[in-house]
Amino acid sequence: MAITATETETTAPGAFGPAAALSCRECGERYDLAPRFACEFCFGPLEVAYEFGSVTREAIQSGPNNIWRYAGLLPVPGNVAELPNMNPGLTPLVRADRLAAELGMRSLHVKDDSANPTHSFKDRVVAMAVEAARTFGFRTLSCSSTGNLAGAVGAASARAGFRSCVFIPAGLEEGKIVMAAVYGGQVVAIDGSYDDVNRFCSELIGDPAGEDWGFVNVNLRPYYAEGSKTLAYEIAEQLGWKLPEQIIVPIASGSQLTKIDKGFRELVELSLVEDRPYKVFGAQATGCSPVAAAYEEGHDVIQPVKPDTIAKSLAIGNPADGPYVLDVCRRTGGAVARVDDAAVVDSISLLARTEGVFAETAGGVTTGVLRKLLDEGSLDPAAETVVLNTGDGLKTLNAVEAGVTATIKPSLDVFKEAGLF
Amino acid sequence: MAITATETETTAPGAFGPAAALSCRECGERYDLAPRFACEFCFGPLEVAYEFGSVTREAIQSGPNNIWRYAGLLPVPGNVAELPNMNPGLTPLVRADRLAAELGMRSLHVKDDSANPTHSFKDRVVAMAVEAARTFGFRTLSCSSTGNLAGAVGAASARAGFRSCVFIPAGLEEGKIVMAAVYGGQVVAIDGSYDDVNRFCSELIGDPAGEDWGFVNVNLRPYYAEGSKTLAYEIAEQLGWKLPEQIIVPIASGSQLTKIDKGFRELVELSLVEDRPYKVFGAQATGCSPVAAAYEEGHDVIQPVKPDTIAKSLAIGNPADGPYVLDVCRRTGGAVARVDDAAVVDSISLLARTEGVFAETAGGVTTGVLRKLLDEGSLDPAAETVVLNTGDGLKTLNAVEAGVTATIKPSLDVFKEAGLF
Repeated sequence: MAITATETETTAPGAFGPAAALSCRECGERYDLAPRFACEFCFGPLEVAYEFGSVTREAIQSGPNNIWRYAGLLPVPGNVAELPNMNPGLTPLVRADRLAAELGMRSLHVKDDSANPTHSFKDRVVAMAVEAARTFGFRTLSCSSTGNLAGAVGAASARAGFRSCVFIPAGLEEGKIVMAAVYGGQVVAIDGSYDDVNRFCSELIGDPAGEDWGFVNVNLRPYYAEGSKTLAYEIAEQLGWKLPEQIIVPIASGSQLTKIDKGFRELVELSLVEDRPYKVFGAQATGCSPVAAAYEEGHDVIQPVKPDTIAKSLAIGNPADGPYVLDVCRRTGGAVARVDDAAVVDSISLLARTEGVFAETAGGVTTGVLRKLLDEGSLDPAAETVVLNTGDGLKTLNAVEAGVTATIKPSLDVFKEAGLF
Repeated sequence: MAITATETETTAPGAFGPAAALSCRECGERYDLAPRFACEFCFGPLEVAYEFGSVTREAIQSGPNNIWRYAGLLPVPGNVAELPNMNPGLTPLVRADRLAAELGMRSLHVKDDSANPTHSFKDRVVAMAVEAARTFGFRTLSCSSTGNLAGAVGAASARAGFRSCVFIPAGLEEGKIVMAAVYGGQVVAIDGSYDDVNRFCSELIGDPAGEDWGFVNVNLRPYYAEGSKTLAYEIAEQLGWKLPEQIIVPIASGSQLTKIDKGFRELVELSLVEDRPYKVFGAQATGCSPVAAAYEEGHDVIQPVKPDTIAKSLAIGNPADGPYVLDVCRRTGGAVARVDDAAVVDSISLLARTEGVFAETAGGVTTGVLRKLLDEGSLDPAAETVVLNTGDGLKTLNAVEAGVTATIKPSLDVFKEAGLF
């Protein structure tokens, strides 16, 4: 695939590795690798297009124990592992035998992204944005965030020496606010929902005063979003270079789900895994489930909603990639489903009790949807299945009711009388 | 080294890998590999003695991306990686160039153990105890804990199918209580300090009703403690099979510090690294610093104290391994130092701001001691130095003062007027 685009003047040769251009997901128009995110002709979203070189399992396996082992598949320079970055990834794929037994399944794994440096999958996407921001010469990193992203941007900015200023909706969980602020950057709370924060950032980015600001999920979004592909690569490698048959992914903007699908397809294209069918299932909380609603009603258009759920990290009422999520789930034979907040809380406990994984609310959503789809018969209990936990229960402590069993004096008699043995 | 001890009847051949016996640290008396922890003759603590087979760098490097790559150096069965366990370890060794620059150092790394499954180094030691408990046929896992251990035992018990009952002092941080309780085990708070909890557990363990209870840090302690050796192995491997010249380790019971020293010496003995001098420095918070006090006064005996510090994970007033810590620090030419709570808080911010690592209070203690020893001239700024962060800031949120910079309406004008650009 020949391209005519030349790289921008700020871009050193090889700065984006195998990335060849940005291309419009709607009309296919191609652009230089610049900090742009929307097509000038049709306003469609831009994504990274590649010309991959030779990528082998052996080369990947001899790489670093983080996402940079897949540098040959990402828009990053070849020496990326030596640059100051948070180096996320290669998180555990937990063989969930006890949960599988409880649910009557044959083979279930939990991809536990709470092991990332700031304990959510956002470290993956921010790591990409940091490299793009470095190449483009930005000085400040920014984002609109439901919480996890703010922490990831704060930490990565500190590590890489950027100033940071992040925007969150007022009223987030304490753990998420502290984790965003502790790295020394600015944290600005906006009176309103995440969708209000997002609109505000779109306004901000047009202002000349912000010309050296890289908004990881706005003007750096095409690069940023590619980070989610690493979830697909890792899952396949950790399954022994094999695609799962079923995967359950949470939906916030929907970007992660579409990039996992993109990652699986690339692995097949590059003959790194066998081409076998896989089904992608999307998971939402009922209190913010515009994609699930569109799926159930057979629509292609997403009707925005006003979120009302404890799953704040998924509370995006107007998900940018919603239509593409519908495409992926329908094409692969999956589905989009939703569970209410009570099921989310119950599923967090189930996952903790059976597998020792303390998920944040998003992990409760995916595990809840796993249970629901099994109950409904939409998920095959005999097929190799992966469920994603994308965040950490420590950041959403208020979602669970867990405390001490008893408080006693240090006496064996008191302990026995309380029936605690 | 020939041993005459036969293994106990509950122990399958090979269940403890290269471990050959328990041996008394004081008098050298040897015992079978059983759930015992004190010498019958001199009451000295028992530790695991080995007869290592061939262990090569290549074999380690081709092992799993967790502590089980060092199975040949640990008291665990050869198939340990296939058993249900939390599989901690291989946490990042962060090259801390920005912190080094700020402190005027040449080469500094942060070993960040917050990346472990329950976000503290305790997952390493509990992983060992789980294997021993499985071999000995215990049904319930228990511990006395300052918080992190309780979470690690709760999670590992859930994963491996044990019942759990953990004991903590009343008044711990919320994050630590929830993380202990969410996995479904019993969490019993004791009115008193950690030292009271510890005494209570020693009483409890003698009761016949607890005969199938494995207390990870009491009757399983010799196995449990060996988990800390993996910190030494990983640091050396991640430095390119090289010992650091200086290392700063927090002191709670002191076990971790002595086992890191043991791990370094084993690597030398097995010719896995070059034999070069290293200095071990112990770090305490002034509000609980009995070992630092003994060090400063040149004593060999530790005078117990009543802890009063925000560094609750280090708040052990009567540290069991204190005398051995003094031995190691004196033998290697290191030191034991202490910093007050204000320095702890300040150091947490320093580490977060320069490296994007959000440490719990214990990491503030080690980083604070790093600064102090540099200021005093006791630490060589030109030597290869490693500082440990053993826990996660998310569990000690109240220790830091970090919040939003401002809360504003979603308006560009308001943003600019507030001087936030």
